[in-house]
Amino acid sequence: MKIVLIGAGNVGHHLGLAIHQSDAEVIQVIGRKAKKTSHLAKILNCSYSTNIDEISQDAEVYLLAVPDDQILKVAESLPLGKTASQIIAHTSGGTALGVLGDLFSNFGVFYPLQTFTIGRKLEFSQIPVCLESNNEETLTKLTSLAEKVSQKVYFLDSEKRAKIHLAAVFANNFTNHMLAKAEQYCSSENLEFEILKPLIKETVAKAMTINPSIAQTGPARRNDSKTIWTHLDLLKDDPQLSKLYWEVTRSIENFYD
Amino acid sequence: MKIVLIGAGNVGHHLGLAIHQSDAEVIQVIGRKAKKTSHLAKILNCSYSTNIDEISQDAEVYLLAVPDDQILKVAESLPLGKTASQIIAHTSGGTALGVLGDLFSNFGVFYPLQTFTIGRKLEFSQIPVCLESNNEETLTKLTSLAEKVSQKVYFLDSEKRAKIHLAAVFANNFTNHMLAKAEQYCSSENLEFEILKPLIKETVAKAMTINPSIAQTGPARRNDSKTIWTHLDLLKDDPQLSKLYWEVTRSIENFYD
Repeated sequence: MKIVLIGAGNVGHHLGLAIHQSDAEVIQVIGRKAKKTSHLAKILNCSYSTNIDEISQDAEVYLLAVPDDQILKVAESLPLGKTASQIIAHTSGGTALGVLGDLFSNFGVFYPLQTFTIGRKLEFSQIPVCLESNNEETLTKLTSLAEKVSQKVYFLDSEKRAKIHLAAVFANNFTNHMLAKAEQYCSSENLEFEILKPLIKETVAKAMTINPSIAQTGPARRNDSKTIWTHLDLLKDDPQLSKLYWEVTRSIENFYD
Repeated sequence: MKIVLIGAGNVGHHLGLAIHQSDAEVIQVIGRKAKKTSHLAKILNCSYSTNIDEISQDAEVYLLAVPDDQILKVAESLPLGKTASQIIAHTSGGTALGVLGDLFSNFGVFYPLQTFTIGRKLEFSQIPVCLESNNEETLTKLTSLAEKVSQKVYFLDSEKRAKIHLAAVFANNFTNHMLAKAEQYCSSENLEFEILKPLIKETVAKAMTINPSIAQTGPARRNDSKTIWTHLDLLKDDPQLSKLYWEVTRSIENFYD
C-alpha cells in the first residue's frame, strides 16, 4: 500500500516511521519546512517536496498530518479532485470528518491517539488508531493500513472522536499541567522536583491498574480541612496557585460527595 | 537495629516489609485492628498487639505510621516517658516535628514520600525518605535506618516537608483527579477509558524526561480558543466538569503568558 504523507511534524514523523516499518510504504513526504521534510524523507527512504503541486499521484492513501487549523487549507490546495479515486484522511482528533466532504469522494480520519514528540521512541503498535470514513470501501482500506501499524484499531464517528479528544485533554494536558505546577512550586521553594518522581510514577501506575476514581487519596478525598487550610495558607502569596488548589480540591470533594 | 512499628495500614505495611528485608528488624507491630495487625506481624515474623500498653520496651526506634490526626493521640498514649532514651518518629509529610516535642527526648520524622497501597509491589529502595529530628544523635540513627531501606535519603525541616507535601498534592492527588474525571467522562459517554491509557503513560514518561512545563501541549497551551469553545460546548450539560475545564485551561494560559 502506497502512502503520501503530508506534514513532517511530530505526528507525521511518528506515523511515517510506523508505516515505514510495516509492509506499507511512504512514497513521498510533503512538508512546509525543507530541512524537516528532507530529514524525514531520508529516514523513510522516499522522495519529498515542499511544493504541494509536486505531490505524487501514485498513492492510495494521502495522510494529512498537519495542524488542525491547516487541514482545510491544505486539503483545498491538494491537486486531487473530487473525482479522484484516492483516499484523503486527516489525522486530527478534534476535527470532524466533514471538513473534507466537499473536496473529495473518498475521505476519512486516521487519528492516532497519542502525544508525539520527535526524538521520543514510541511503541506505535500499542497506540490506538481511531478511524472514520465516508464509505465502506474507504474504511476497509484505512482499517487495513491501521492494522499494519497498530494492534489497537477503533471505529469512532466524529462526535465520539471529539469526546475522546476532550477526555484526552484531561488525561494528557491537564494531568501534565498539575505536574508543571508542582515543578514550578518546587523550583520557587528550592525543592528538588526529583523527589516527587517516584510518587508520580506510582500514582499513574496505580491509576492504570485500579481505576483512578478508586485510587484517589489526599486531603480533599478524606475531607481533611485542616490540611487543606494549611496548604492554602502556604500558598497565600501565590493567588494563581491557590486558586487552582482550591478549584481542584472542590472538584474532588464534589466527585465523592 | 530493633524497631517497633505502630500502625499496620498502608504506610506501616510497606515500611515494615522494607525494614524486614533490610538488616534492621521489626520486633513488634502495634495496630488497632487485630486482623490487619496480626497479618502484618506474621509477614514480618514478629509479635504484635492491639494494646499499646503491651508495647515492647526493647526497640531503639518507634515508628508512628498512623493517620495524621491520630499522631498526637497515639504518641500521648505511648508508655515511653520524657526520659526514655528511645527514638519516636512519625511518618507524616504534613505534620510538624514539634507535635512530638513535649512528650519525648529523642524524636523525629521518617517520611517516605510515596502513595502506599497494601498489595501493590513497590521498590522501596527508590522511595525518597525525608528525615528530621530534634538532635544530632537521633538524626544519625534515623539516617542509618533510612539508608538501610532506601537509596534516597533527604533532610528536610518541617517547613520544607510541608511544602514538598503540598507539591505532592498537585503531583499525586490532583494528577489522579484529572485521570478520574477523564475516566468518569468516558464512562458517561460510553467511551472506553482504556483508549486513553497509552496516552497517559506517555504523558507522564515524557514529563519525567523533559520537564512538564516544557512538555505541555493542548488547546490551552497553543491558545486554540476554537477547540476550547468546542469542548466547553460539549460539556454544557455538566457544570462541574466544564468549570474544572475552564479553571485548568485558564491556569495553563496564565502559566505561559
